[in-house]
Formats: sequence, structure tokens, C-alpha cells
Amino acid sequence: MQKIHIIGLGLLGGSFGLGARQKFPELVISGHDSNPQNLKDALTLGIITEAKETPDADTDLVILATPADTLGDLLLQTLDQVGENTLVFDVGSTKAKLCALMADHPKRKQYLAAHPIAGTEYSGPKAAFADLLNRKVNIICELEKTDLHLKEKAYELFDALNLKLRFMDPEEHDRHLAFVSHLSHASSFMLGQTVLQRMQDDKNIFDMAGSGFASTVRLAKSSPAMWAPIFTENKENILAALDGFIANLTDFRNKIESGDSKGLYEEMAEINKIRDILDLGK
Amino acid sequence: MQKIHIIGLGLLGGSFGLGARQKFPELVISGHDSNPQNLKDALTLGIITEAKETPDADTDLVILATPADTLGDLLLQTLDQVGENTLVFDVGSTKAKLCALMADHPKRKQYLAAHPIAGTEYSGPKAAFADLLNRKVNIICELEKTDLHLKEKAYELFDALNLKLRFMDPEEHDRHLAFVSHLSHASSFMLGQTVLQRMQDDKNIFDMAGSGFASTVRLAKSSPAMWAPIFTENKENILAALDGFIANLTDFRNKIESGDSKGLYEEMAEINKIRDILDLGK
Repeated sequence: MQKIHIIGLGLLGGSFGLGARQKFPELVISGHDSNPQNLKDALTLGIITEAKETPDADTDLVILATPADTLGDLLLQTLDQVGENTLVFDVGSTKAKLCALMADHPKRKQYLAAHPIAGTEYSGPKAAFADLLNRKVNIICELEKTDLHLKEKAYELFDALNLKLRFMDPEEHDRHLAFVSHLSHASSFMLGQTVLQRMQDDKNIFDMAGSGFASTVRLAKSSPAMWAPIFTENKENILAALDGFIANLTDFRNKIESGDSKGLYEEMAEINKIRDILDLGK
Repeated sequence: MQKIHIIGLGLLGGSFGLGARQKFPELVISGHDSNPQNLKDALTLGIITEAKETPDADTDLVILATPADTLGDLLLQTLDQVGENTLVFDVGSTKAKLCALMADHPKRKQYLAAHPIAGTEYSGPKAAFADLLNRKVNIICELEKTDLHLKEKAYELFDALNLKLRFMDPEEHDRHLAFVSHLSHASSFMLGQTVLQRMQDDKNIFDMAGSGFASTVRLAKSSPAMWAPIFTENKENILAALDGFIANLTDFRNKIESGDSKGLYEEMAEINKIRDILDLGK
């Protein structure tokens, strides 16, 4: 592996660049970002060594790390530009639409659908760091549709970055992620919104906020440019997750309203099971 | 200050004991917990040196750290037991009902209403640690109703533990806390519930959970014995907070359903202001 090209030099694309450079110092890493300041920062920070819009035909790997709603067009365009020994993978948070789009594409074998479960509430190249991907889960969809030899190039990078691979259907991926990632972001944003609205009456309300509030509202700092497209791209699954969440909250507020201490206690004791489940995952 | 007595030897009561012992090694610390195992653990861990149900009449300070719905009766009972040089303070998460209960009490001057904003998702004496209260906000209500000299005893301890005092009305306290603490706990529990329900169909759903999910669901590990009473004691304020949250979630899901990317983007960009507000508080 000698050359990689990264399109979208934000938190995730940028961290791929920094991680790849650390593990393969000889690698030529070029890249592009539609935001000129991001592109400039990516050069300064050493995420890429060369700014160019289009990957060279002999690039080994192209990584697509732009917002979810731009990936379809970008993928089609990139496959047109690269030679037959290039593998293109995206790192988007939704997979079903992309896989459907690629189903009958003549270069389907040169595409790998990936989703590393890694991020922070910050965005842009300055938020990127080489260790972001270390020991994170990387979900791969429809791996059998990708060329075996080309796939090795991506696996070489994933291994070097210590990514733990998991395999699943794109539909299953999108359904799962709606519940364990997208819902958390929607909830965090709306929690932030609810307290901000309250602040109009109580200016000092945030003074009292403890670590619990900070923890639940952290994701409300996330990038709207990344998240608006995820919510609309994965609409059906996210609506199912949100509707379940709203129904549970409504049931819980009704228990509070009727003073049902026993019901509240029992429900929370049942949910406490999540302790073991979350700790197992460590 | 020579003698303190702690009733309720869980995370918060236990941490007061460990913190006090560290700062005042000569202090005699007795205490009680209605759970025999907690009492035994508190002795083993050195939170208290003597187990006794009732504080000595010459105790300087009595700290009440039991669930919110038990504090009223416990406070009345404790004030009956102590001498006139004892100050009693509670550390409960709701303050309005307690202050109302004490309004015309003949020993009102011996009571201080306090609420240190400190905790973790764990509970019981084993979760306690000496540093828990370090640099945390401690809200004091109706400070003018407490005897000036007796209050000094509590302040001596608060200063030693590095607590930062804030003063507000009990009603204001309860309203604020509903939004910046109690709502976060309800949201976290219901988020946990929603994903647990989903797990019935997708056994491996938690494998994909990243740090964002862990952060938003952390509080769902909290103690139901502590939280069921808080939700019912602070009912009106929590219902207002939950209703606002549910309305915001419903509005957000409707924007998603109608594919209103621009509306989603703008709303999230507005909520991003919380970055500056939260960072200011650091």
C-alpha cells in the first residue's frame, strides 16, 4: 500500500489520515475537503501531504468521509475516477441506501461499506487525533460483494489502526444504529433544547448542572452538518426509535403524575440490568 | 468540632464520612443505616467508627443522607433527639417540602437545608470516596433561618471539603434541579428502556454501542431507591420538564418525518450554543 486519498477531512477522515501516517510513515496521503479552511488545516496538521480534488488512478485506497447525504453521488463519481486496483470505502453512519445504490454497479467489487463506531462531540480537522480509531468497532456490510484482493488493502489499514471488525446486513446496521447511536444524539439535542428554553426564565440554571447533566447533554455539541443528513437518511429507523422513546417517557411521566412510586421503582430496577450489559461490553 | 453523626451511609453520606475523616482525623464519626449490610460495610471501610441509631445529644453535626421521601420524618425525629448545640443538615435532592415542613418548627434554627450537587451512577457505601465533594457546588436554602453560630459548624466542614456554596430559595432550587438533574435521569432511564426493549428482537444490539450511547445512558445505572422518591417528591417541576422534553422530541421527530433537513440543521445549530455555556461553567 503506497497511496491513499481521503475526501472529507473532518474528525473521522482526519483521524484516518493521522492514524495511517503514524502506522505507515512512507504512505502518500492526499485529500480534499469542500471547505477551504478545513483543507488548509488538514495540510498544516499533517493529515494529508497533498491537496487534490481527484484521487490518482493508481491510488490504493480512497476513503469517503463526508456527510451521509453526500456519499451516494461522491461514491459514484469517485468510482468513475479511479483505476481498477483502487478500493473505495466510505465511513458513513447509514449503510442501506448506499448498498442499494451500488447493488448493480459495474464497479461494485471496488467498494467496501464500512462504519467505524468512533467519534466525539467535536468536528473538523482540528478535532481529529491519531488514536480515535484505536480498539473501536468497525462495521462492514456485504463484505462478500467486495473483491477479495482489494479488500486486503482496507484490512491492512484497519488492522494497523486496531479496528475490531464486525459484519452485518446494511438494513440490520441502520436499524441497530438508530437505537444505539442516532437516538442518543436526538435525545441529547432535545435535552439541551429543553434546558435552553428554561434558561429564558432562569438565567443561572446551568450553574447547578452536575456531571450527570453534562454527560447526557454532551452530544448536543455535535455537528448539525453531520447529523441533519443522518436523521433524514435513516428516517424510518430513527422514527421507530424516537416513537418508542417518546412512548416510554410518556408512560414514565404518567407514573410520576399518579404518584406510582412502586411502579417507578420497579421499572428503574428492571432498567438497571443495563449495568451488566454495558459492563460486559468493556 | 468533635463529633458528627451520619444517617444514611450510601454514596453521599459515605463520602461525607470519608472526606471528614481525611480532613479532621480526630473527629468522632458515628452513624446509622437501615440496611445492615451497608452499616457493616461503612464500619469496615472506615466511613464511621461507631454504629449507633441515635446521635449523642452533644453531637456537633448530624448529616441526613437518606432517600428524599424519608427525610421529613427523619428530620423531625432527629431534632427531637439532639441537644441545643447540634446542627442538623440534610443533603436531599429536593428542598421545598422540607423547608415548608420546618417553617414553624421550634428548632428551625438548628436545621440547614443543603444539597451538594455530587454523585455518580453508583450507590452504597462501597461507591463512596473522600474526594467526591471536592470542588462541587453545594446549594443552601433559607440560610437566614439557621442559627449563625450553629451554621459555622457546617461551614467548617463544607470549607474543608472544598464545597462551593450557592444560595437560593427552595422553590427555585427544586425548579432548577428538575431541569438540570432530574430530567437527565428520567431521559437516561427511558433511553435505556427503549434499547432494552429493542434487544428482545436484536440480541447483539449493545455490541454496536459507542461512547455516545454510554454517555447518554450512564445514569440509567442509578439507584431506584434514591430516584423513585425524587421523582415523586418534585412531581410538579419534573412533569413540567418532562412535558417540555416530550414536546421538543415530538417536534423534532415531525421535522425528520417531513424530511425538513433545513429545519433540523437550524435547530441543532441553535442548540450548539450550549457548547459555550457548558464550557463557561468549567
